[in-house]
Amino acid sequence: MQDNSYLLGMVGLGTMGRNLLLNMADHGFKVAGYDKDPVKVSMLGKEAVKGDVKGFTSLKEFVDNLQKPRAVMLLVPAGKIVDSAIAEIAPLLDAGDLIIDGGNSHFTDTNRRAEELKSKGLHFFGMGVSGGEEGARKGPSMMPGGNPDAYKVVQPIFEAIAAKVKGDPCVTYIGPGSAGHFVKMVHNGIEYGLMQLLAETYEVMQKGLELPGDKIHSTFRQWNEGRLQSFLVEITRDIFAFKEPGADHLLLNDIKDEARSKGTGKWTSQVAMDLQLPIPTIDTAVSMRDLSKYKKLRTDASALYKSGSLKLNVDEAQFIQSLEQALYFSTVIAYAQGMHLLSQASAEYGYNLKMDEIALIWRGGCIIRSTFLEDIYQAYKKSTTLPHLLLDAGIAQKVNGALAGMRTVVSAATAAGIAIPAYTASLSYFDAFRSERMPLNLIQAQRDYFGAHTYELIGKEGVFHTQWFAK
Amino acid sequence: MQDNSYLLGMVGLGTMGRNLLLNMADHGFKVAGYDKDPVKVSMLGKEAVKGDVKGFTSLKEFVDNLQKPRAVMLLVPAGKIVDSAIAEIAPLLDAGDLIIDGGNSHFTDTNRRAEELKSKGLHFFGMGVSGGEEGARKGPSMMPGGNPDAYKVVQPIFEAIAAKVKGDPCVTYIGPGSAGHFVKMVHNGIEYGLMQLLAETYEVMQKGLELPGDKIHSTFRQWNEGRLQSFLVEITRDIFAFKEPGADHLLLNDIKDEARSKGTGKWTSQVAMDLQLPIPTIDTAVSMRDLSKYKKLRTDASALYKSGSLKLNVDEAQFIQSLEQALYFSTVIAYAQGMHLLSQASAEYGYNLKMDEIALIWRGGCIIRSTFLEDIYQAYKKSTTLPHLLLDAGIAQKVNGALAGMRTVVSAATAAGIAIPAYTASLSYFDAFRSERMPLNLIQAQRDYFGAHTYELIGKEGVFHTQWFAK
Repeated sequence: MQDNSYLLGMVGLGTMGRNLLLNMADHGFKVAGYDKDPVKVSMLGKEAVKGDVKGFTSLKEFVDNLQKPRAVMLLVPAGKIVDSAIAEIAPLLDAGDLIIDGGNSHFTDTNRRAEELKSKGLHFFGMGVSGGEEGARKGPSMMPGGNPDAYKVVQPIFEAIAAKVKGDPCVTYIGPGSAGHFVKMVHNGIEYGLMQLLAETYEVMQKGLELPGDKIHSTFRQWNEGRLQSFLVEITRDIFAFKEPGADHLLLNDIKDEARSKGTGKWTSQVAMDLQLPIPTIDTAVSMRDLSKYKKLRTDASALYKSGSLKLNVDEAQFIQSLEQALYFSTVIAYAQGMHLLSQASAEYGYNLKMDEIALIWRGGCIIRSTFLEDIYQAYKKSTTLPHLLLDAGIAQKVNGALAGMRTVVSAATAAGIAIPAYTASLSYFDAFRSERMPLNLIQAQRDYFGAHTYELIGKEGVFHTQWFAK
Repeated sequence: MQDNSYLLGMVGLGTMGRNLLLNMADHGFKVAGYDKDPVKVSMLGKEAVKGDVKGFTSLKEFVDNLQKPRAVMLLVPAGKIVDSAIAEIAPLLDAGDLIIDGGNSHFTDTNRRAEELKSKGLHFFGMGVSGGEEGARKGPSMMPGGNPDAYKVVQPIFEAIAAKVKGDPCVTYIGPGSAGHFVKMVHNGIEYGLMQLLAETYEVMQKGLELPGDKIHSTFRQWNEGRLQSFLVEITRDIFAFKEPGADHLLLNDIKDEARSKGTGKWTSQVAMDLQLPIPTIDTAVSMRDLSKYKKLRTDASALYKSGSLKLNVDEAQFIQSLEQALYFSTVIAYAQGMHLLSQASAEYGYNLKMDEIALIWRGGCIIRSTFLEDIYQAYKKSTTLPHLLLDAGIAQKVNGALAGMRTVVSAATAAGIAIPAYTASLSYFDAFRSERMPLNLIQAQRDYFGAHTYELIGKEGVFHTQWFAK
């Protein structure tokens, strides 16, 4: 019973794959799904959709039903499972067909897979998909990278199902090779930074101001109506209102303070280090997730290093205003570091990224969508070669305006003993970034002293070595 | 003209290789050197030494002159050159012979090479050597890892040439496989942290206190006579006294503020992230070296984000005392993070590291040697399974004693706009580390909200998922 007319086939009918497929069907596309698990396949048929969607448990039958050139999308866990899925499917495909990996694969794996499939005449796309299960169903942000001609086959489907902001779909061709997965990785790195900043804001509110949950809720609600408006602030607001039925306290209070991660933040930091591109706010978010898991050590340390009350001696209403500035300031820094990393990677890997378009498609659908992304979009639209977001005059004005609040919060919290590592990393990065002269001439001198690594002089070509000590 | 009686052969007669070899000869060992470059070989003969040292330009002749089982040490640049050196030498060796890589190779390369050579019946050692050219000549700290029986052949030589502290040689068998190179890598990571902290101390002194060079020199000189005594403080002291003949200002002032690196700090941070072990002070040192290279961006940013004077409104003498506390505090944190990473790696990679012995051999010869390493040694000697340096009661007392000064410096500098990223990373790490309750329950809740990643509850087994929002 094959009709060769299914426009796209999805391999892996977990939450994300199923929701994306139903989203496509909702938009009138005839699509097919495959999963080894017959339960998942039968679930697919039960969901009411406008379009035509069909599930298969036979991979061959699934492939035979796809229109040529075929477009097969994988939504399976990153890692070896992607390789085995490709190994099963590729022999069933014909030259010119397209495989799309919609998971969070490491971009170096994507490069390798693209090369391997190219030798078989198959196109390969690494596509970042952000928005969680809700986004997948109702409109995600998508970052496809690979061969631009192959993209044209699936472009109408992706543009239809993507989130829309001011009429623009939150999907665009990102660039060649692994560009799509790289950009999604950095998206997640920024996400790590923003989530850590929100956690620290909560820390200052609860330990420094001793605000009750409803006051924290109303503060985030108010902030979400201003320049801090974003998906992450919005869900933080909701979390501070959520109680289990009949409970007298927030569910949040019962949740362990040990955060897990799937590794995309770590990858971002590791790659940034390879590119020698500093993103300390994101690095800090990664290391704090790691530290959170050492519960036993932290408990033992809390006895040896007693803090007592961390209550700040400040005017509450005024300090909350400073805190809004501080969160805004740090948020800008987190995005700026991520965008800087994208610029550098674009040059290094030949991605030829359109920074304005990336900001554009992040404005909706994805986890880091925010009002501020409109500012980022405008900054890069005005100057597509802007070397760093902080060098845009409009952004600079806003950052300078938030600086006083940022300093107030950081100075007060560090004096009192409240841990705000991502805040301090953001402020220190800013202060170092605006230093025409950093103190790292001393490090050059030290390296030359002990290792004869030589140093460079201001206004003089070449490298030099000094015998600093008497032998 | 072969006599088969040379005890060790050195491949690569650059500064480090030549100095180590001369050091061995000084101690009465009959040793041989090989280099492709005849100039380097002839230089070897010109240096006056007590012992017997001979240079070769023929690799075969060099190998034939070594006593069996042969010990060949490589001191060539890390990377592909090590592989090609091994490829040239291995065919000339016999089963049971030992190759020692004395460079800063990545520990994963060392694992691979050990495996490859094992299949040929050859032993392979990865050995960290610290101390720079001076240390190599007069007494380095050495970290050999590999097969313990193979170590016995070279042990007398290494113990003789190593630096001595209180009679103990600064060398010990570290552990199997790549343990030696791993420990050396972490040594260098700590070194990055300490150097960045010293650079920031200089920043506070020059921009915050506007101290002249001679006052900075005398301050470091004084500190070097107290608990901060260390090789790095000592050379920093010297650098603040060094003027070129006839010059009216410090050479340091003419050196570019862009620090280079060879990658061992970066490796440390990347591996720590793989091990999910937080070392934010070291991460920050890596990212600041990277930021230093963006001179053009920093210059442009300094115009947009003007700082004016950064002079602190403080009592100079008193603040210098706080600064001493702050540097001491941060120094402890940098070492503590590095030692913690070693503990974790020991468990993960089966190195079975003796933490007390590592502290012992770092007390002399190496770049991070310091008075404080005696404290570290005592802490781990007292409790060989100490899970974290900060949990030693004696260390805790010292850290608590320095905390007030640390907070004073961080609070004042961040309020004024002086960039102190490694200081703030150290303090934030400390405050988070002593938090029995971190705010990362919020991150668990957020992840579950947008990605159905589930969360864990306090005092309740299992993972849970909540429908946080109304669909």
